[in-house]
Amino acid sequence: MYPIITLTTDFGEQDSYVGQMKGAILSVQPRVQLVDLNHQIPPQRIVAGAFELWRAWRAFPLHTVHVAVVDPGVGTARRIIAAHIKGHFFVLPDNGLLSFILAEESVEEVVEVADPRFWRSTVSHTFHGRDIMGPVAAHIASGVPLRKLGGELDAADLVMLESRLQDGDRRDRPFRCEVLHVDRFGNVVLPVRGELSGGGRTIHVSIDGTSLALPAARCYGEVPNGALVLITGSSGLWEIAKAGGSAAEHLGVEVGSEVELDTGR
Amino acid sequence: MYPIITLTTDFGEQDSYVGQMKGAILSVQPRVQLVDLNHQIPPQRIVAGAFELWRAWRAFPLHTVHVAVVDPGVGTARRIIAAHIKGHFFVLPDNGLLSFILAEESVEEVVEVADPRFWRSTVSHTFHGRDIMGPVAAHIASGVPLRKLGGELDAADLVMLESRLQDGDRRDRPFRCEVLHVDRFGNVVLPVRGELSGGGRTIHVSIDGTSLALPAARCYGEVPNGALVLITGSSGLWEIAKAGGSAAEHLGVEVGSEVELDTGR
Amino acid sequence: MYPIITLTTDFGEQDSYVGQMKGAILSVQPRVQLVDLNHQIPPQRIVAGAFELWRAWRAFPLHTVHVAVVDPGVGTARRIIAAHIKGHFFVLPDNGLLSFILAEESVEEVVEVADPRFWRSTVSHTFHGRDIMGPVAAHIASGVPLRKLGGELDAADLVMLESRLQDGDRRDRPFRCEVLHVDRFGNVVLPVRGELSGGGRTIHVSIDGTSLALPAARCYGEVPNGALVLITGSSGLWEIAKAGGSAAEHLGVEVGSEVELDTGR
Repeated sequence: MYPIITLTTDFGEQDSYVGQMKGAILSVQPRVQLVDLNHQIPPQRIVAGAFELWRAWRAFPLHTVHVAVVDPGVGTARRIIAAHIKGHFFVLPDNGLLSFILAEESVEEVVEVADPRFWRSTVSHTFHGRDIMGPVAAHIASGVPLRKLGGELDAADLVMLESRLQDGDRRDRPFRCEVLHVDRFGNVVLPVRGELSGGGRTIHVSIDGTSLALPAARCYGEVPNGALVLITGSSGLWEIAKAGGSAAEHLGVEVGSEVELDTGR
Repeated sequence: MYPIITLTTDFGEQDSYVGQMKGAILSVQPRVQLVDLNHQIPPQRIVAGAFELWRAWRAFPLHTVHVAVVDPGVGTARRIIAAHIKGHFFVLPDNGLLSFILAEESVEEVVEVADPRFWRSTVSHTFHGRDIMGPVAAHIASGVPLRKLGGELDAADLVMLESRLQDGDRRDRPFRCEVLHVDRFGNVVLPVRGELSGGGRTIHVSIDGTSLALPAARCYGEVPNGALVLITGSSGLWEIAKAGGSAAEHLGVEVGSEVELDTGR
Repeated sequence: MYPIITLTTDFGEQDSYVGQMKGAILSVQPRVQLVDLNHQIPPQRIVAGAFELWRAWRAFPLHTVHVAVVDPGVGTARRIIAAHIKGHFFVLPDNGLLSFILAEESVEEVVEVADPRFWRSTVSHTFHGRDIMGPVAAHIASGVPLRKLGGELDAADLVMLESRLQDGDRRDRPFRCEVLHVDRFGNVVLPVRGELSGGGRTIHVSIDGTSLALPAARCYGEVPNGALVLITGSSGLWEIAKAGGSAAEHLGVEVGSEVELDTGR
């Protein structure tokens, strides 16, 4: 046995909060592989955490436990849940963090985390990542079945965000969306799925009032340095990219900017 | 055996210094669980490192080895020490990094790190984290007893910072302190211990010339969005928080800002 | 067996790209020690990645596998290589990332990474760190010999950067170089090797038009607080440092600033 636990939080890196969570996990199960997915989720931006979980979870092997703590409701009546989806486990507040995954996958089992025997012995009012979710993840990684953690829930009752991924190959044109993410390279990620194979296709994009006719390509290297291009990023979503530069800076856009797309279909 | 070593430094993340320390540790003991506590300690701010160690160490299981490198005196005559406190081990320069812990706990054993057999074979003049403290921590994690590392010291001779935690329930009012820490969420952490249970209690706070009557609460969720509140944070210290926002930004305060508290007792 | 894999990338920390790479590695080999060397390499700055690999690899034990992904050519015809150097393994694009190491060490074996049996089952056009290099590193860490990964290459054909380390003890004076790196403490790292032993030696430095006579010392602690000094840093390179402060800020210099040195020899 050599279980993996991933961590996604909005804790940043100026505090030892992530380290304290790991200490609580290791106090339960010291033989675990801990992987940081992202701790730079903007404070309390649940949709960013949901997107991060969605694009990262498939890179991990079966039986991985994913803990996500973006938890503005800590200390209130919001539920903590543990879910089993396609051989992976998730421990997180029931506030929409699973939305993007739930839109694609069905839940095998989901329970409310309720039995304090699997928590830290003292539980603070403001840090359930360390005191509840971390230890619960460690117990799941050690083989504790979900049904022992608390009562079963109906997956249809879980909180869902309104934000949705769209299918880029749909026929009705044009269609609208908002910028979902900007990465470190300045790639502008759109909530639009689909494989852009290049081959001379042009897609019309209006973004913050600028109209662009962008060539679809498979990678940055297919266009000249400095050119804008629309590619399918590594998560299967459309990205506006700039070869050798930052598309986000070039266009002056950020998360939430409005986009209109016309695929010419 | 599956030992844990935590790392706390002011090395930041634009260099491989932390990675090099880990390489030196793994060269001694490859079967170790490495946990980053905090590498964003402001350069050479010993008090911030001391606070971080104090609030994080209890989250870890017995036998954990904590290495801390905030070391403005590297290369000078300052001592490096290894201490055994309540079943945990600490390896760090003797410059005050243990102050907050020593104020609460007694030392079982402390030695000066002096025997180069437990160091890296070549020792630089500027990076004792990699060349001395990391390898020594790995040897302790592997079971080497402290007395082999160097001569015993008297705990009363260790360097102590002037900064102290106060007890919020003390009777004399009002009392003064300085902001100890501001976290990523803008919570303003005070060096004041005590459990604030809510229940309608009001505490008067003067901070940088602003006077506030803050309700005490158990968590942010107990007050309306945008309201300021005084809570007991996850380390047991008082924090000025803002529901759904940053108290530090709201108040324009930072680490070191002067605070006067009146608990009305 | 308990293999180590280090990761050096320009992925930053606002995305889960590093985490996804680790997921792909753990899908091949879950019993591995993962160490982050540096993920703050400025986007696509190969020379910074090459420097980081060079100064960090020696801190790790034999058989460590080092993966480096600074890969502006991803998706184009640039090769991915796996190399065996002095008992360590390297997996990276053939774009100069090995330059500083190759200037000092000879290659025992280097192959082109070509056999997709050792890759992720689906390979994106833009994220070969996750889809090719990570899994290949995990297979090497598991004992797969390099020759199975693809055809052998001639080390003399590998891409080399123009940037080179110089020897500070050479006789011809003065000589020129560019600032190679500025670390978190504001130490200004020069591409100049050599042990500065102190002892009253003075070195003349012109940097961005400012002329300085800097004392050579072994560590910051040997000069008064606030003084500039030239020391041999922890990687064996010359660094302009300021005791208790930032030399880079003091001098207003950054990576690439021109420097002229006169050792008075």
